[in-house]
Amino acid sequence: MSTKPKPTPPRKEATTRDAWITYRPEIKVLDCTVRDGGLIHNHDFSDTFVRAVYDTCAAAGVDYMELGYKASKRLFSRGEHGSWKFCDEDDMRRICGDNPHPDVKLSAMADAERTDYHEDILPRDKSVLSMIRVATYIHQIPTAVDMIIDAHEKGYETTVNLMALSAVREHELGQALDALAASPVDTIYVVDSYGSLYSEQLHALVRLFKRAIEGTSKQLGIHTHNNQQLAFANVIEAIIEGVNLIDATIYGFGRGAGNCPMELLLGFLRNPKFDQRPVIACIEKHFLPLAREVDWGYSIPYMITGQLNQHPREAMELRESDRKEQFLAFYDKMME
Amino acid sequence: MSTKPKPTPPRKEATTRDAWITYRPEIKVLDCTVRDGGLIHNHDFSDTFVRAVYDTCAAAGVDYMELGYKASKRLFSRGEHGSWKFCDEDDMRRICGDNPHPDVKLSAMADAERTDYHEDILPRDKSVLSMIRVATYIHQIPTAVDMIIDAHEKGYETTVNLMALSAVREHELGQALDALAASPVDTIYVVDSYGSLYSEQLHALVRLFKRAIEGTSKQLGIHTHNNQQLAFANVIEAIIEGVNLIDATIYGFGRGAGNCPMELLLGFLRNPKFDQRPVIACIEKHFLPLAREVDWGYSIPYMITGQLNQHPREAMELRESDRKEQFLAFYDKMME
Repeated sequence: MSTKPKPTPPRKEATTRDAWITYRPEIKVLDCTVRDGGLIHNHDFSDTFVRAVYDTCAAAGVDYMELGYKASKRLFSRGEHGSWKFCDEDDMRRICGDNPHPDVKLSAMADAERTDYHEDILPRDKSVLSMIRVATYIHQIPTAVDMIIDAHEKGYETTVNLMALSAVREHELGQALDALAASPVDTIYVVDSYGSLYSEQLHALVRLFKRAIEGTSKQLGIHTHNNQQLAFANVIEAIIEGVNLIDATIYGFGRGAGNCPMELLLGFLRNPKFDQRPVIACIEKHFLPLAREVDWGYSIPYMITGQLNQHPREAMELRESDRKEQFLAFYDKMME
Repeated sequence: MSTKPKPTPPRKEATTRDAWITYRPEIKVLDCTVRDGGLIHNHDFSDTFVRAVYDTCAAAGVDYMELGYKASKRLFSRGEHGSWKFCDEDDMRRICGDNPHPDVKLSAMADAERTDYHEDILPRDKSVLSMIRVATYIHQIPTAVDMIIDAHEKGYETTVNLMALSAVREHELGQALDALAASPVDTIYVVDSYGSLYSEQLHALVRLFKRAIEGTSKQLGIHTHNNQQLAFANVIEAIIEGVNLIDATIYGFGRGAGNCPMELLLGFLRNPKFDQRPVIACIEKHFLPLAREVDWGYSIPYMITGQLNQHPREAMELRESDRKEQFLAFYDKMME
């Protein structure tokens, strides 16, 4: 056997598929626990909980923390939704104001057509936020580009999160990427909203996005869902392809099947600035109790919607009902 | 954007990374629910349960079902262990004897040095078994080869499952693969016993195994554990590399963090002979009740042993104790 080649050493976080380096310092981690988790908790968390996530991000070396949405108060009322639907400056300052962690940048997400961004997103020097993330479906791209320009001119770092990619036609996606590549956005996200993408599909999408930003200074991000237990795996594949901004949530907390678990991601990344221990402490203290109250994470109904490349809303309805374990009836209904 | 290349279409189950075919008929699925699950249930299942798994395999198009071990009765007593530790012919015939499913081949596993294989493995024509799977650690290879020859001469299809690969030195692995490639074994398994392998490490290992069997008629198999939520993902990566015999368990039932879930695997495979629906029915009827009694599946202690590339036994002890949610203390102990 000595004449046979040795196995290729693992190339985790390598810049290319051919190089092995210890770690890639360009990789940044964005915690969206409170934002994506807010979707199953009506954005209503105690200050203690949000502060715990914030402190955990700081202790773990996480680069960005997303607090919630900048939703329009004409479309959504404060009485019906928690504070993190709106991310008012006063609310955010209650969490970080007195003793902000200098190495954790704060972000908020703004949904195209569901935000009064001209008024509600303050100039960067009047806000604790550093980053605005624009979430958009493909048909909202012109609005999204206007939002990106607005946030960019106000001084923010910007991302665009093009949602439900797995349901977009290739030709239209190409046009959308052209428009985004011509905008001032800093990071374009590959978003697997339905948790439907397999490894090779994810690789193909990331390569398409890479070609779209060639010659620009933009970078790519990845946001995954765990419908098929592939949220972490698809993050690894994206990192192999060169994606540098990685979304994760503590204990995978997030809508439906949840997201890439932060504890798995930090165990994978080798940059010594990251520390998994504070995340494990936070899970034990805050997320085990939460898991007894709120349902999220991999389960058969979410697997089914993921495999069918569909929005998880019907699976979420089932999991919130007293039929939550009637998997076969749900399968039959969805296959009709 | 029309001048830019289209994304590569998904190449699921393609024979090579460059070809797209609908499905690869060589891919076979082996259900090891009762065998691997027996490790957390002392191999003690009701006939109703084992028969339900058997019927489900038949209805779902699963190619092989593994019932348990062929353990030595000199080392293990029937009083202390359930029937599926021994797979006596009478017990197996109670499950399948009257009305066997012609398309589900039965297998049993025999651990090197823990089996009286010369006596307890009957000639093929006297048994309901079609396949003997030899499980071995690297230092037991000479015994394993003798077991393979014995089973082969008795008329069985054979596999060898080389365990704890992630903890084996490359040079020794090369020698082991040479010995196995020279044996009459039909299938050599890549086994991620500790659930520690990442995508690129798995690819490198499979490529090493592929080179070892070049020029033979042997094929490769894959058996994964879910410590890092990568059991299904690593199966996909192995399939991309050309691995054709795939282990899975219903609802991921198996020791520690469990195995690749059958329902995810059958959703991925496109061969129309496979049907996911009977598996979902079986989960609802048999595995949801089981999950209320027995602890398995991804949890933080299993993640920690997986990341450390260690046997899950300490995590299993924790999960069976009243300290099962003391994640931080476990982390600190394991990191000492």
